[in-house]
Amino acid sequence: MIKVEPGKTRLGWIGTGVMGRSMASHLLRAGYAVSVYNRSSAKTKDLVDLGATLCKSPRDVAAQSDVVFTMVGFPADVEEVILGEAGVLNGLGPGSVLVDMTTSRPSLAQQIYTSAASKGVAALDAPVSGGDIGAREARLSIMVGGDRFVFDALEPLWTLMGKTFVYQGPAGCGQHTKMVNQILIASSMVGLCESLLYATRSGLNPETVLSSVSTGAAGSWSLSNLAPRIFKEDYSPGFFVNHFVKDLGIVLEEASKMKIDLPGVVLAKRLYDELKEIGHGDKGTQALWLVVNRKAE
Amino acid sequence: MIKVEPGKTRLGWIGTGVMGRSMASHLLRAGYAVSVYNRSSAKTKDLVDLGATLCKSPRDVAAQSDVVFTMVGFPADVEEVILGEAGVLNGLGPGSVLVDMTTSRPSLAQQIYTSAASKGVAALDAPVSGGDIGAREARLSIMVGGDRFVFDALEPLWTLMGKTFVYQGPAGCGQHTKMVNQILIASSMVGLCESLLYATRSGLNPETVLSSVSTGAAGSWSLSNLAPRIFKEDYSPGFFVNHFVKDLGIVLEEASKMKIDLPGVVLAKRLYDELKEIGHGDKGTQALWLVVNRKAE
Repeated sequence: MIKVEPGKTRLGWIGTGVMGRSMASHLLRAGYAVSVYNRSSAKTKDLVDLGATLCKSPRDVAAQSDVVFTMVGFPADVEEVILGEAGVLNGLGPGSVLVDMTTSRPSLAQQIYTSAASKGVAALDAPVSGGDIGAREARLSIMVGGDRFVFDALEPLWTLMGKTFVYQGPAGCGQHTKMVNQILIASSMVGLCESLLYATRSGLNPETVLSSVSTGAAGSWSLSNLAPRIFKEDYSPGFFVNHFVKDLGIVLEEASKMKIDLPGVVLAKRLYDELKEIGHGDKGTQALWLVVNRKAE
Repeated sequence: MIKVEPGKTRLGWIGTGVMGRSMASHLLRAGYAVSVYNRSSAKTKDLVDLGATLCKSPRDVAAQSDVVFTMVGFPADVEEVILGEAGVLNGLGPGSVLVDMTTSRPSLAQQIYTSAASKGVAALDAPVSGGDIGAREARLSIMVGGDRFVFDALEPLWTLMGKTFVYQGPAGCGQHTKMVNQILIASSMVGLCESLLYATRSGLNPETVLSSVSTGAAGSWSLSNLAPRIFKEDYSPGFFVNHFVKDLGIVLEEASKMKIDLPGVVLAKRLYDELKEIGHGDKGTQALWLVVNRKAE
């Protein structure tokens, strides 16, 4: 298996949006050579300034890399940059590693694993949580599916990007774990918005209420971090509504395959779909308050 | 207003169940004289051993107290021990204070406030969160409605029972705040059980998943404290299903008065009703897993 070392191992990074840019910068600063590609090349500028090499396609990145990371938007983007004609798998050689960090379909992760294996390439699915701040501060939680020895070999890289990195099982298990994360957030956001609705309509001061309820059994990350943003009417994205709607769609597809009902997710998806329909897809998930409050008017 | 002092102020305590017993014991240990009453008098033994005086009715407790606390089960019990023939309000004299710490109807708290005022008695609604452990360790969160100067006068007593005590507004606002707390827990429990269902059915190890998701944006008190109990099939009550079903019923009554929809609470109530119907009313709220898992089989 590959032995990862700064100055020796050549890395590639596809997808330099808000998350990917921060993550790749940690690799560059640690002394790794990094080739980069992004659909809109303007977003690679910060990394090129840090010493990254700009390439013309995911395949070109792969051709000069030992380990390639992808961090793009939707499953269709993952398919294109990995399995497409100009995709990573047409550039990587045997013994190299592909790590998809996009939140995407577990079944696609399995398909990529199989395609990669047929070319002697190891593939991991490694979605993250922690948002833009977690990416910037290298405090992400990285949830990994694939072969454990590949996960172990990449430990020097995980530590540069994340605070928590856990091997979850075979290909697809990283994505499944991320879905578990999103299921928890879905109901948590519904509860948060309903509790604020009740609080305001019953004449309470929501900020004073927060001081009573946030540190006990009702406490959550959402309550402590997103309720204050709602109080300030700050709906800027920590995590995009559009991406969360995508994730909840994947959860429900997978649940349907497993023949399980997740009525809490169905409810959250319905409310988030409505939020997107009224034009708030590019706001943060805390904007759910706009739908819950509006429906009550 | 009354000035609260150990050795001088006479306290009363009605309702010495798991919570009330611990809370009253802190008052006794701080040097206050405490008269007690409980429907089943056996449950007062620990307190009598600590020096409490056992009385024959809530009215008798009130007749020899300056400040009386009630901590009973359901709104009907609150009505009986406070407004009934042998209730507290028939024993308290002008200038005294009544504090109902039961989780109960906001409208009943307002009614008690008015009845008490007509006798020159101050009344506060002061439900708590933190469960049996919080009561034992004097780390409760106490949410108070009524008059602020009464809340302020009782500060020496709040500090003996709670870590957080916050004045939330006029009569009923303590109860409304507790309802906000329960709304948050309701959806949190649905999310927790659905996430465990997804995790187990997708072939993940739920305990390994927990290590990836519990410290980030999906984190919550429920996830960190109740998921491990579910893993151990420990459904012993930290908080009773029966009481939670009562609380969610109150939330939905109040929501109906305010003409707001709380579909997340409706869903949680439906699942908890089912849990109660299949005979798990005296288990802890984490037993919701039994319903969610069963429905998927």
